[in-house]
Amino acid sequence: MSAHSDLNTHSPRLDHIGIAVRSIEAAAEVYRTIGIEPGAREIVINQGIEIQMLPVGEARLELLQPTRDDSPVASFLEKRGEGLHHIALKVSDLKSVLSKLKADKIHLIDEEPRIGAGGHLIAFIHPRSTGGVLIELMED
Amino acid sequence: MSAHSDLNTHSPRLDHIGIAVRSIEAAAEVYRTIGIEPGAREIVINQGIEIQMLPVGEARLELLQPTRDDSPVASFLEKRGEGLHHIALKVSDLKSVLSKLKADKIHLIDEEPRIGAGGHLIAFIHPRSTGGVLIELMED
Repeated sequence: MSAHSDLNTHSPRLDHIGIAVRSIEAAAEVYRTIGIEPGAREIVINQGIEIQMLPVGEARLELLQPTRDDSPVASFLEKRGEGLHHIALKVSDLKSVLSKLKADKIHLIDEEPRIGAGGHLIAFIHPRSTGGVLIELMED
Repeated sequence: MSAHSDLNTHSPRLDHIGIAVRSIEAAAEVYRTIGIEPGAREIVINQGIEIQMLPVGEARLELLQPTRDDSPVASFLEKRGEGLHHIALKVSDLKSVLSKLKADKIHLIDEEPRIGAGGHLIAFIHPRSTGGVLIELMED
């Protein structure tokens, strides 16, 4: 494999783990005691969530607190309580991965890439096809 | 900070994400389609689980399949179904982190480090103190 193609295609890498919480302050406290200092904090208005990033090496924990009752994270909290919500994997060619998943009859939430937080191209895979894990794919 | 201390103390890093599954084969399939090639596979007899590692950059996904009905992962599957089970963070001084957590009245499953898979010193924090997340701490 040439240096060029090596730069452009690579194995998927974990970007972050989303954790649904009722209060970012309360949850961040225990991570701070472990030694993890809070990173960026932002509000994603169209998803109805406030996000607190917690860097853990190459990846990040992403604390997700709903800002309104009708946000997807609010319904998750109501059904399942606080806890691990999703994982996000960076892939080098999102469109091609989605085609392969479709060919394998994997149930996709987004059949086409869409713009997510931070302007990344993203798509979600349904937990029913992944051993119960909500997976976000991000174009790297 | 000197280069020496920099080598010996550092911020916690994500080591792996444990995912409880009924069948490693079925779950590994979708990850393979995403482009993640299976890594090491092992059986941990005293925990009653078979493990399939899936490298995702610096971290790994860890598929956990019970090998007997009385294993902790089997009870998790019965109660919650397949899905995200725990996250493991590497810390540079496990004993000192556990003391700080105890001082903060954080509910620990293991008050002292114990030997886990691969001979690592580990300890688990109870989900009730972490926003619903079962956290494994590993001595780096």
